[in-house]
Amino acid sequence: MLTVKDSVHDHVEVSGVAAGLLDTPTVQRLRRVRQLGTVSYVYPSANHTRFEHSLGVYHLASRALDSLGVAGARAERVEAAALLHDVGHGPYSHNVEDVIHRTTGHYHDDVADLLAEGEVGETLRDHGLDPARVARLVDGQGKYGQLVSGELDVDRMDYLVRDAHHTGVPYGTIDPGRLIRELRYVDGELVLAEGNVQSAESLLLARALMNPTVYSHHAARVAKAMLRQAAERLVDDGLDPAGLRRMDDAELRVRLREHEATAETARRLDERRLFKRAVWAEMDGVPEAVRDADAGRLRAAERAVADRAGVAPERVVLDVPPAPSMRESRTRVVVNGETRRLDRQSPLVDALRAAGREQWRLGVYAPADSTDAVGAAAVRELGLDIDGALVRETRTGLQGRLDDFESAGP
Amino acid sequence: MLTVKDSVHDHVEVSGVAAGLLDTPTVQRLRRVRQLGTVSYVYPSANHTRFEHSLGVYHLASRALDSLGVAGARAERVEAAALLHDVGHGPYSHNVEDVIHRTTGHYHDDVADLLAEGEVGETLRDHGLDPARVARLVDGQGKYGQLVSGELDVDRMDYLVRDAHHTGVPYGTIDPGRLIRELRYVDGELVLAEGNVQSAESLLLARALMNPTVYSHHAARVAKAMLRQAAERLVDDGLDPAGLRRMDDAELRVRLREHEATAETARRLDERRLFKRAVWAEMDGVPEAVRDADAGRLRAAERAVADRAGVAPERVVLDVPPAPSMRESRTRVVVNGETRRLDRQSPLVDALRAAGREQWRLGVYAPADSTDAVGAAAVRELGLDIDGALVRETRTGLQGRLDDFESAGP
Amino acid sequence: MLTVKDSVHDHVEVSGVAAGLLDTPTVQRLRRVRQLGTVSYVYPSANHTRFEHSLGVYHLASRALDSLGVAGARAERVEAAALLHDVGHGPYSHNVEDVIHRTTGHYHDDVADLLAEGEVGETLRDHGLDPARVARLVDGQGKYGQLVSGELDVDRMDYLVRDAHHTGVPYGTIDPGRLIRELRYVDGELVLAEGNVQSAESLLLARALMNPTVYSHHAARVAKAMLRQAAERLVDDGLDPAGLRRMDDAELRVRLREHEATAETARRLDERRLFKRAVWAEMDGVPEAVRDADAGRLRAAERAVADRAGVAPERVVLDVPPAPSMRESRTRVVVNGETRRLDRQSPLVDALRAAGREQWRLGVYAPADSTDAVGAAAVRELGLDIDGALVRETRTGLQGRLDDFESAGP
Amino acid sequence: MLTVKDSVHDHVEVSGVAAGLLDTPTVQRLRRVRQLGTVSYVYPSANHTRFEHSLGVYHLASRALDSLGVAGARAERVEAAALLHDVGHGPYSHNVEDVIHRTTGHYHDDVADLLAEGEVGETLRDHGLDPARVARLVDGQGKYGQLVSGELDVDRMDYLVRDAHHTGVPYGTIDPGRLIRELRYVDGELVLAEGNVQSAESLLLARALMNPTVYSHHAARVAKAMLRQAAERLVDDGLDPAGLRRMDDAELRVRLREHEATAETARRLDERRLFKRAVWAEMDGVPEAVRDADAGRLRAAERAVADRAGVAPERVVLDVPPAPSMRESRTRVVVNGETRRLDRQSPLVDALRAAGREQWRLGVYAPADSTDAVGAAAVRELGLDIDGALVRETRTGLQGRLDDFESAGP
Repeated sequence: MLTVKDSVHDHVEVSGVAAGLLDTPTVQRLRRVRQLGTVSYVYPSANHTRFEHSLGVYHLASRALDSLGVAGARAERVEAAALLHDVGHGPYSHNVEDVIHRTTGHYHDDVADLLAEGEVGETLRDHGLDPARVARLVDGQGKYGQLVSGELDVDRMDYLVRDAHHTGVPYGTIDPGRLIRELRYVDGELVLAEGNVQSAESLLLARALMNPTVYSHHAARVAKAMLRQAAERLVDDGLDPAGLRRMDDAELRVRLREHEATAETARRLDERRLFKRAVWAEMDGVPEAVRDADAGRLRAAERAVADRAGVAPERVVLDVPPAPSMRESRTRVVVNGETRRLDRQSPLVDALRAAGREQWRLGVYAPADSTDAVGAAAVRELGLDIDGALVRETRTGLQGRLDDFESAGP
Repeated sequence: MLTVKDSVHDHVEVSGVAAGLLDTPTVQRLRRVRQLGTVSYVYPSANHTRFEHSLGVYHLASRALDSLGVAGARAERVEAAALLHDVGHGPYSHNVEDVIHRTTGHYHDDVADLLAEGEVGETLRDHGLDPARVARLVDGQGKYGQLVSGELDVDRMDYLVRDAHHTGVPYGTIDPGRLIRELRYVDGELVLAEGNVQSAESLLLARALMNPTVYSHHAARVAKAMLRQAAERLVDDGLDPAGLRRMDDAELRVRLREHEATAETARRLDERRLFKRAVWAEMDGVPEAVRDADAGRLRAAERAVADRAGVAPERVVLDVPPAPSMRESRTRVVVNGETRRLDRQSPLVDALRAAGREQWRLGVYAPADSTDAVGAAAVRELGLDIDGALVRETRTGLQGRLDDFESAGP
Repeated sequence: MLTVKDSVHDHVEVSGVAAGLLDTPTVQRLRRVRQLGTVSYVYPSANHTRFEHSLGVYHLASRALDSLGVAGARAERVEAAALLHDVGHGPYSHNVEDVIHRTTGHYHDDVADLLAEGEVGETLRDHGLDPARVARLVDGQGKYGQLVSGELDVDRMDYLVRDAHHTGVPYGTIDPGRLIRELRYVDGELVLAEGNVQSAESLLLARALMNPTVYSHHAARVAKAMLRQAAERLVDDGLDPAGLRRMDDAELRVRLREHEATAETARRLDERRLFKRAVWAEMDGVPEAVRDADAGRLRAAERAVADRAGVAPERVVLDVPPAPSMRESRTRVVVNGETRRLDRQSPLVDALRAAGREQWRLGVYAPADSTDAVGAAAVRELGLDIDGALVRETRTGLQGRLDDFESAGP
Repeated sequence: MLTVKDSVHDHVEVSGVAAGLLDTPTVQRLRRVRQLGTVSYVYPSANHTRFEHSLGVYHLASRALDSLGVAGARAERVEAAALLHDVGHGPYSHNVEDVIHRTTGHYHDDVADLLAEGEVGETLRDHGLDPARVARLVDGQGKYGQLVSGELDVDRMDYLVRDAHHTGVPYGTIDPGRLIRELRYVDGELVLAEGNVQSAESLLLARALMNPTVYSHHAARVAKAMLRQAAERLVDDGLDPAGLRRMDDAELRVRLREHEATAETARRLDERRLFKRAVWAEMDGVPEAVRDADAGRLRAAERAVADRAGVAPERVVLDVPPAPSMRESRTRVVVNGETRRLDRQSPLVDALRAAGREQWRLGVYAPADSTDAVGAAAVRELGLDIDGALVRETRTGLQGRLDDFESAGP
């Protein structure tokens, strides 16, 4: 058994298959992948990595299994899945995933491969565990998969607290100790025991508060979109997407600097000279064709906007996030002896869903000196009906660094 | 200037009139009044006092005034009001206020007197401040009174954070530094600047989460109701209500032990042998006559229930809290350049109001061995239409100490 | 099993005999005894109680027993001792202990009685535990007694962290999780495993920093000495010392107010009008006869000083603390395979001992307006050779409230 | 003015010249240089950067200047120096500094150049500040330079607290708020005001505890020495040392991977397959010629040891840290009205110096399978007289990951 000191959970004790997995290159790579990607442009102390998060998820999984009375190979499988749940992430976490998936296909297959091959596969098999079954747990399948990836998973419990700790934002504060103690299985489903409607709501609220303040802060979104576009360019120019997936943050960063077509973007990212918002519009005024466009169409649209605005293509970035979901709303809680979905029980769910929907924004970004031209071009090219809804920085007075750093608003 | 070390704000610097006021017996008494009254029965580390809270409120007021550019006598008046805002509280904070007010009349007059008389009045006048004007600020009147008592007051900002720190409950986490920096006056009204809808929502959510988990935890409510009834008995038997208001926690506790009619309740409180819930009913099934009853009527009802159940009158306690309010919903925020009330802006307000209303409960409490008899008697005597809504401990499986300590549920 | 939320250890799970003991009046009384007595005069947020501390000590004991592989009745006995270790404390913790012991004799006997009688004795016996054996553990006797009261006891691990949390002073920061994991038994002695010299030193240093800043802050000492003298007076005037021991803070406070001879002191304590230092002298210049005097002699000396100064006897308080000890210096650590005492291993021990000795002070306290007269009288009456060493407040410029609140110095 | 959210100081307000400097590429590069270099191999959450540390130092400098009453251009100069004090650091902070300095000469000149040139120089001059004077402050020269680099500098106050926060080690806990408030200038020297001997000691103790536990943890030292050797190899093979200095962590990492002679070391670092200790010896038994050897001699010795052991040269790393210094011992404190150096006042200084000296170790590191051969070769080649003092991992039972992660011991 080894003990790791963690800034969030204090001491994490690692034993069994997890201790073996920790030493594999696949898991060690997570030390070099930031948990929050470009969020550190907004919150400079948010430099924590997927590695410490994975340790935290493993720790909470162990405690949950203990509390649920699950032991033996079954527990080891879940613990392995918890520790490995993020090994499929490319550099900068979620930031370049789309680029990877576009060409490599289904995410689950990637992970299944990563778990079956090399030292990870070996270690799992040495401990009598089947990599394919572990991969299914990572994917959230089956009774115990819910613990790793589901409405009440320990992933969420770790990242909310950890991201709050490292950004300094006080909103991710849930009570993992209580949540874990109150987990139960009812008819094979993971639920919270009687008397925990509010515990369930706290998960929901933490996410609802962290989303606009941290995860979707506009400056982090701008940097992420710039990074995504540059990574696409690397792939267009010959980089193997599977190789991109195995990089760490350092390698992607250096590649971008060295490649001619992305060097300017790399320099901008290095010097924090981020693009500004040319359009920042509520999704209500955005045509469905744009909202639902796939990666190919979006890139074509980017180029068309650049063309119309008369600027180089890499000076326009289009950012169309998927519709906000709220997985936590399907959390199940026992109320008066029967299992209920949180959205059937709590009036907060609909309210938070509405609030999330209102914060859903399309962004078009460009260098400060061409936001006007690019904005106008985008409105026409994309057929935006944003009349009063066009929210450019110049109109909302959001410029200035206060906003860049921590404003929660649009 | 003197510096006080505080567990929440670290160093609090006290100067000017506040330094003088700190040394008065009136303010020193607050050292001996617990901030959360009977909540420490549920959260044993919640023993913080009105004194440290008052220092915290003073500290935040100073910073807010600074940030708003208010100085001089005007600022001193607000700082004095912030430090003094709780001097009118009787022992056990809010727990016995009703008893006091029932006979002494309007709360504001009490405070105005307390501020005008003795060393407090002298100190205020020595610094050129009019006690009556300070009292009006305590009451939330006028432009600057909003800072002391209003939707965006510093009182709330301190207690949410402080109560979370001392209970260990992670839900009171707002960001006072940000809130204070974003305060503005628009047309004489205290508002949050552009881009702070979510900051305003965070205040609301913190309260919404702390309410059932901490402030209205049922065990704290039981103890509070027992204490209230016993204090009423003291007054009935000759104690001057004004004297009750000037007591500290210690004196009330000892008086209850020494007085024959309240000795048994005092012993129960000392040994944490709290009454149990005989009825715990949603307010929807409670007749309006009961909901809106004044103190006299409630005591009569208590006695009638005891009578019908065949138990001694001090073995039945009726607990009818006022309808949940949500003052924070009227918070004003600047959105796109105009001032809006939060409840017009955020879908969360209505949802939280609905949630609060659902948690609103009538309680009838009795010793464990007579909850059945008292429960049945109360249903009839009070005309409760609670059919399925009657939630006794025996039916919800809420007994046990887990619940006593931290359950958020009914 | 029940779960208690604690501001220091988060969730404390209580089961077995401990759950039974928690509900006894003897343990519940600890809710009403402040952990740090008069220290809250200096650090206003230090209002935590013996109750939450006892829960914390129980929690750490459970974890230590787990880590040491001790289970069954043996473990239950230690857990009971951990939870009960402070039940012998009178009101205001250590502050009035001397008064009690002076007349009731040996402390251990008191505790043995408290553990054998009433609900505590019953509960212990119900769980098959012998109260006398538990009392011996409380006393630090035997192999497992070291865990409860010894150089490496869990008592110390809890209070250092808890007192730091509640005062806001950042110096009590040890790492209980690591210390507990590294505990071992070698030849029946509790030691720290290989590689923990520094862990042992951290305990020592935390105490060395907390002592002058918190535990022996002069303002806390003044208040404590005033309280001690007043309690003595109560006993002189007929209060049964055994009764004093069973009081809570509230009762002592009210008794002092109600008794004519102590009413003035009670009022001073209520209003924080503490005596000032008339003499504050290094112990080197204090005759041995004074240093080693017993309670009776000290009180005679107090009266003689008052007499000589021409003030009423209750206006002079003499404060002669015992020589500083450093129990942690005898901590045993495994170094290169053999057990060594920390003072044989670490050069810090002697240095800290010297530092502690230098901070050792005799205090004579009096109302502000008679410090000069009382100081001069004390120098003569006690035969102090303090020439340059006489450190009165007027000479060190220590007046003012900054010092009162948090100065660590003399 | 802009506001940055920091995980340690909460809100940091940046204005004036500092706001301009923040946006320069030179300062932005610090976002990509880890504060603790290879310490994250031991404490996985220690990923904070020089950037957030620099903001923290700026923040504390501002508060100190405020408290000292320094304003205007003088204050701006100090604030600029505080923000810029680390821009001269190469990648992995202190880890490869030696490599850089060996060939580029005096560190101060580097910094003076960095401050005079490019956007930094421009920004300073735009605000009417002379880069050369700012560089002298960074160097600790002059009355105000002491605030930036000296015994009582704000650099130290930030990193002790920040490193504790991010490692999770509870030992760096000083009280920056108090220290800053107590700073004074006496005869042009920065001192702590009367009553602060213990505040000064707390700085010393925090460093003394953090050193072995964090800064000099052996696993961090092994990785650092491997990195240093590999960087030397890059320079030998043609990399411009000045270029090395301007790299960020990412670039150095990728360069090491891509260069054939360092690829194996890079892979080891990526996979955390660190060398093990072949020799770990107290410096007392190490010949002076080795202790005082310059970089060239050490590299020759490394090669000679490898030769003698029959392994490739990159498989032996020699680690000879400089003698432990204790700058904090020269801290000046006012005691009874006169300024004294802490080492003249506190017995702790000598004890800590002795303790530090005892922890001073020579390390020779090699892959696990050749520690025996390399150890024996090193003992002979270096003429080590380490008899009983030879502490190899196999003899102390220190293998295992517990030690790798957090043991404070040898």
